Amino acid sequence: MAKVQELAIKTKKEENISEWYTEVIQKADLIEYTDVSGCMIFKPNSYQIWESIQIFFNEKLKKSGIRNAYFPMLIPEHLLTKEEEHVEGFTPEVAWVTHAGESELKERLAIRPTSETIMYPAYSKWIKSYRDLPLRLNQWANVVRWEFKHPTPFMRNREFLWQEGHTAFATKEEADREILEIIEYYRQVYEELLAVPVTPGYKSVKEKFAGADYSTTIEPLAPDGKVIQAGTAHHLGQNFSKAFDVKFLDKDQKPQYVYQNSWGISTRTIAGMILTHSDNRGLVLPPKVAFNKVVIVPLLFKGKEEMVLEKANEVMESLSEFNPILDDDTKLSPGFKFNKWEMQGMPIRLEIGPRDVESGVCMMSIRDLDEKQEVKFEDVKVRVKSELEMMHKRLFDNAKNMQDSLTTEATTFDEMQKAIESGKRVLVPWCESIESEEEIKEKTGAKTSCIPFEFENRSLKNVKCFYSSKPATCFVYFSKSY
Amino acid sequence: MAKVQELAIKTKKEENISEWYTEVIQKADLIEYTDVSGCMIFKPNSYQIWESIQIFFNEKLKKSGIRNAYFPMLIPEHLLTKEEEHVEGFTPEVAWVTHAGESELKERLAIRPTSETIMYPAYSKWIKSYRDLPLRLNQWANVVRWEFKHPTPFMRNREFLWQEGHTAFATKEEADREILEIIEYYRQVYEELLAVPVTPGYKSVKEKFAGADYSTTIEPLAPDGKVIQAGTAHHLGQNFSKAFDVKFLDKDQKPQYVYQNSWGISTRTIAGMILTHSDNRGLVLPPKVAFNKVVIVPLLFKGKEEMVLEKANEVMESLSEFNPILDDDTKLSPGFKFNKWEMQGMPIRLEIGPRDVESGVCMMSIRDLDEKQEVKFEDVKVRVKSELEMMHKRLFDNAKNMQDSLTTEATTFDEMQKAIESGKRVLVPWCESIESEEEIKEKTGAKTSCIPFEFENRSLKNVKCFYSSKPATCFVYFSKSY
Repeated sequence: MAKVQELAIKTKKEENISEWYTEVIQKADLIEYTDVSGCMIFKPNSYQIWESIQIFFNEKLKKSGIRNAYFPMLIPEHLLTKEEEHVEGFTPEVAWVTHAGESELKERLAIRPTSETIMYPAYSKWIKSYRDLPLRLNQWANVVRWEFKHPTPFMRNREFLWQEGHTAFATKEEADREILEIIEYYRQVYEELLAVPVTPGYKSVKEKFAGADYSTTIEPLAPDGKVIQAGTAHHLGQNFSKAFDVKFLDKDQKPQYVYQNSWGISTRTIAGMILTHSDNRGLVLPPKVAFNKVVIVPLLFKGKEEMVLEKANEVMESLSEFNPILDDDTKLSPGFKFNKWEMQGMPIRLEIGPRDVESGVCMMSIRDLDEKQEVKFEDVKVRVKSELEMMHKRLFDNAKNMQDSLTTEATTFDEMQKAIESGKRVLVPWCESIESEEEIKEKTGAKTSCIPFEFENRSLKNVKCFYSSKPATCFVYFSKSY
Repeated sequence: MAKVQELAIKTKKEENISEWYTEVIQKADLIEYTDVSGCMIFKPNSYQIWESIQIFFNEKLKKSGIRNAYFPMLIPEHLLTKEEEHVEGFTPEVAWVTHAGESELKERLAIRPTSETIMYPAYSKWIKSYRDLPLRLNQWANVVRWEFKHPTPFMRNREFLWQEGHTAFATKEEADREILEIIEYYRQVYEELLAVPVTPGYKSVKEKFAGADYSTTIEPLAPDGKVIQAGTAHHLGQNFSKAFDVKFLDKDQKPQYVYQNSWGISTRTIAGMILTHSDNRGLVLPPKVAFNKVVIVPLLFKGKEEMVLEKANEVMESLSEFNPILDDDTKLSPGFKFNKWEMQGMPIRLEIGPRDVESGVCMMSIRDLDEKQEVKFEDVKVRVKSELEMMHKRLFDNAKNMQDSLTTEATTFDEMQKAIESGKRVLVPWCESIESEEEIKEKTGAKTSCIPFEFENRSLKNVKCFYSSKPATCFVYFSKSY
């Protein structure tokens, strides 16, 4: 019993979400810290989530004609510094390789914080004619950003995993269209895989990617009213193609610079998933990212073990498509096992005891519900399948309700400030000035999350900026953020 | 026509294999060099091969109960240097991170050349009792080894991709068994996926992994008589568990050090595949690693385009399981297209012209054969499937014959030296002394490739070492190597 209590989460999510988070990620066996601050171990329980995202996203990419490749991780300093805005954005966080073996390198090498500057010299070689366009490549890679803020696992790692897509087009229109296509895939990763609702939209000028013409994002809202930036698609215009001389001859044999996009989604997605769904009993794993979707716990009473195990194995086999685990360890009590699997977010648990075998039913627990249900053995497979589907939908709907209840609108700074103080995300009409965003951040701790696509068509006639009282040019979400 | 010739490979494989190799990897669009020597771009045509290997090997791992994880890339110097032999083996090639942003780090960080020293401190935390064993993890990662030898793409990159498995067991017997299991999976990667025959065996004491008790390997033999070390599994004994304090309480509550293995296969496999199968027309891609297995080239004569394209699209659809490409570019001649796809190793090419549509047949070219075959449209799907299977088998058999013809036996140093001079791999009885291996290397340029499992049971009674004339303790292959 001591062990069960040690395993339990001591902090309540509703009381201190950041302490609760720190407990969940360790007790659900997702993460391990190392001697290097900000560099964490993705244990199998979390890495499997990333693998699910890879499989899901790769399928979208392949259908769209985007191919995977791999570019070197080390970027010579003279390349990293070629695009002016980009340098300013990234160099403060770059990890530098200066020595190899006993020798000092002639030029420092940056570990990629993102790969524009190592990829585009190659694009410049490869793209000669309009017939070489579009060029659409993606890579799955590790990146290092030596942030000096406090590292939080998944949320702010100094080394993290992501995919980065880098594409080049003959026209701005094609590039613009791709941005919306990719943001839609990111929405699907969150909503269809992780059951986390997101708000797609544009980043403000202040918050856009260093070197982009504009950035788009999908931002889930956590239960503490803070948004999480976790997937972004940037239209780079011709900024990088001019810096890296990525030119093509058009149909009239005239040289033109390409229009470029870059886009990425990272292991931060896992932070959004945990914050949204998990509870005071531990991790809640959305069924589609759980590699093992069912655990079977046999209740092994003396003299009846064989009968129970035989039935448990039979059920195991019938559920093979869900990669079930049979937890037949005889040294641990059923209670301990129940707690462990709940903590690790196992979507469905089946308990099978001798009486169950005799009466032809077993008990089923669904991770996000607080009840057990009786299921006939002959119905188990069908029920597991439908319960997993319902669980996904329920997680999504609950998260949507949570997000809606944490979202409000305001038309004055006073209203806006109160909303932020009460832990909400607030939609306001805004004039889009960079100075106003800085002042508001100073006064309220909130910055713009995104200019949501969903309100692009709402009329701005006679609508004034909530802060400057100048004519508003958009509706934007302000909120605190991770 | 000028373009076709430019595309052609100028060097003959049989005349200068290394120049030929350099041409193939560039003209088949596999690789691009960068400003950092030894750090190359894996273009989509080569990265897809690595993706096939990942999918194939992940399936073996999952079935065996090994889970994927991800450990940090940066290893603090004090950890890298904990195991004595290991340090000596790797530090001359380590890339060091010394600065982050503007700050100098307190301790230098090594970019992993391999991950024992970042993983095992965590293993020491995680493993407490015999009930925590075995612990079997794998990661897919990039590694950096700043070798000062001439870099050759795939063969010797300073940054390359690999998987590394790291496992811990209560007993040596279990660890030994796993080594054989993993080497068998590596054999399958080569033989069943890449159609490259390999020789599994033990490394000599001189050639084993720095810090291992013993190492095993699978070594394909290239057409120039050199072997390629590309997949190894090491039994680390208790060397690392003692250095990193990885202990467990056994069933009698006594503390014991674990027995460990580490094993890896890298993007070097791609070099082995290219050297074995490709020819003077370019890359030959074994069908199982070709994402697109068929290209359809419509022959578009004026006025007949619609009829031909309609048929080509129909064939495309029927072949969807082979991810066919329809090359309907109207600006390039069929001849140019044929050359391009041959160069890139496309396993099967179908040509469809107006006369073919009328007579109900099309022409099929199989990449490794020098002939065209007529195929009825209704038979295309079945024929493609069987031709791909036969192609795999043919590639394997041809490679096996090539390797056999390059392999010989010797019992004296004189015979051995002649065999090496004639570009062969040679099996000899050997006394396993480190000094003799060094002397032989000096005199012949050859070192031990492996002590093959296949001759372990051959009698050594009264057999003398070919070099020292002392009693032989094994049969070993000597050869030149990449």
